[in-house]
Amino acid sequence: MNPTTSDAEVAAERLAEFYEPVADEMRLVESRLRKEMQSRYPFVDELVRYGCMLGGKRLRPALLLLTAKACGEVREEHIVLATVLEMIHTATLVHDDVLDRAEQRRRLATVNSRWDNEASILLGDFLFSHAFFLASTTGDAFACREIGLSTNRVCEGEIRQKGSRGQYDLAEDEYLDIIDAKTAELCACACHLGAHYAGATADVVEQMTHFGRELGIAFQIADDLLDLYGNEDDIGKSLGTDLDQRLLTLPTIYTLRESTVEDRGRLLSAMQEESPELHSLLFDAFSRYDAVAYTRRRGDEYVAKAIRRLSPLSDSPAKSVLDRIARFVVDRSF
Amino acid sequence: MNPTTSDAEVAAERLAEFYEPVADEMRLVESRLRKEMQSRYPFVDELVRYGCMLGGKRLRPALLLLTAKACGEVREEHIVLATVLEMIHTATLVHDDVLDRAEQRRRLATVNSRWDNEASILLGDFLFSHAFFLASTTGDAFACREIGLSTNRVCEGEIRQKGSRGQYDLAEDEYLDIIDAKTAELCACACHLGAHYAGATADVVEQMTHFGRELGIAFQIADDLLDLYGNEDDIGKSLGTDLDQRLLTLPTIYTLRESTVEDRGRLLSAMQEESPELHSLLFDAFSRYDAVAYTRRRGDEYVAKAIRRLSPLSDSPAKSVLDRIARFVVDRSF
Repeated sequence: MNPTTSDAEVAAERLAEFYEPVADEMRLVESRLRKEMQSRYPFVDELVRYGCMLGGKRLRPALLLLTAKACGEVREEHIVLATVLEMIHTATLVHDDVLDRAEQRRRLATVNSRWDNEASILLGDFLFSHAFFLASTTGDAFACREIGLSTNRVCEGEIRQKGSRGQYDLAEDEYLDIIDAKTAELCACACHLGAHYAGATADVVEQMTHFGRELGIAFQIADDLLDLYGNEDDIGKSLGTDLDQRLLTLPTIYTLRESTVEDRGRLLSAMQEESPELHSLLFDAFSRYDAVAYTRRRGDEYVAKAIRRLSPLSDSPAKSVLDRIARFVVDRSF
Repeated sequence: MNPTTSDAEVAAERLAEFYEPVADEMRLVESRLRKEMQSRYPFVDELVRYGCMLGGKRLRPALLLLTAKACGEVREEHIVLATVLEMIHTATLVHDDVLDRAEQRRRLATVNSRWDNEASILLGDFLFSHAFFLASTTGDAFACREIGLSTNRVCEGEIRQKGSRGQYDLAEDEYLDIIDAKTAELCACACHLGAHYAGATADVVEQMTHFGRELGIAFQIADDLLDLYGNEDDIGKSLGTDLDQRLLTLPTIYTLRESTVEDRGRLLSAMQEESPELHSLLFDAFSRYDAVAYTRRRGDEYVAKAIRRLSPLSDSPAKSVLDRIARFVVDRSF
């Protein structure tokens, strides 16, 4: 169950406030995105403009720009590469919506529900391709290489996640490695490019890359928890889209690992048989084994690690906002 | 209706013979492709290795390498970029198979039929991403840019083709422009990169780019004709996959344009109503208006244009094979 629209709106407002130190640069990214996402062919134009609206919170561009500002100055490359990352992220969302058969995203009909799966596949491909092209306009093969490497890992992560369906013995390490690839990698890439093109030292670039990765992992842990619990009004009303797709996330992995032989056996049978009792068995086990507290603790650990990565930076509004965003991603997901 | 397997096999054998002047380099591309298309994660590995087998005839790498050899020497960049183009082509095939709900490709089950649509989408994304990454390993942003631009046009062409479904007044120029984008663009890119990295003059690079484009257009015209007529055993047994998808190709565009008001009216109604009589009406009209002869003539014109582009090159086995490939694509498609 996802957060309600009002939660999402509150989150978006709070994020906009976080983006304040790079507000002008975020506007440049937004107009660059709109400029790139158009076409002289009417149907292509309609489709890509629609795609442009689906992204939403622009977390990756913001991480890139805030890192750049916290490390030095925002340059033209930063604007271009922030746009590139948002396009790649949007491509993965558009393709995810086909896989998840999602009908809505951020109050808008998904491309697959407004048009069809074919339109989603082609729009996603257009976005990937256009993003790589745009990266090449920096004239720097390094940018193309970093973005290519990160996108490879995102795609690999998505495939690994698919391969993990119904894998009820998924270990916590493997889960973390998959979310690192499918979610945290682009956040790490954003911070890496932000620091690199601001002329940061190799050590700072490395620390900032870790910052992005750890923040991304914490974000996904919190997001997976929201998938099970939603907001408070909805607690326990559904199994969550992950379990519906036979994907294990941290609360379930932890509970299966910590539970008694009897509890584990009962849960595994209910999962394998997709038993109607799974829901009550699982939420009952979460509560007996304190799975939510454990999951929150793991998320908090990643946030704490991420925040420590900021220590080499001198104080600045951008640095302080990076610190606050890291705390915010586990406090309330969006 | 597609050519039978034995036709495809004959075509593949004839092509292998054409590739003789770059046989060693084609082997390097093949082994590079196998090296790039693997993963340390078992499910990813299984999927990408399977994808590697779906490409088949390796026309684009061959065009790139033959152009390189006809213009100068084959270099490491050529091997890398030939591999890149084959990966991009394979990505589009894998996604096309989802759109066409195809079950077989080159005697192999498609990814969507062996696994599911999700696997196809993710594999195609992996291939796009990996191709762009690989292009960046040349260290030359020019290569990334050219490949990005071409892939943008391919994606745009695919979207425009989708947008042209049921557009029964599609003009010949628009049809040609769409096949230029969705098919000929990657052939043009292959010849462009082949000539550029062999150190050809700007004029030769331009001529070779035209050569690839014109050859690609002729290839697609012939391919669309095969979709309607298949090989001789199958003549007229089916409407063809294009018309099933309400896509007009050259024989139909020509016939609608040239036919009397009565004939046109009858054909348009049959198309709009998806009438069971469409098949006999259409093939009868093709025959009365000589649509096949017209289509063949248009294909031949593109081949003749393409061949004239080769005149600035000195004679060589590679040049002579480029000439023969251009003639072959309309003689027998594959």
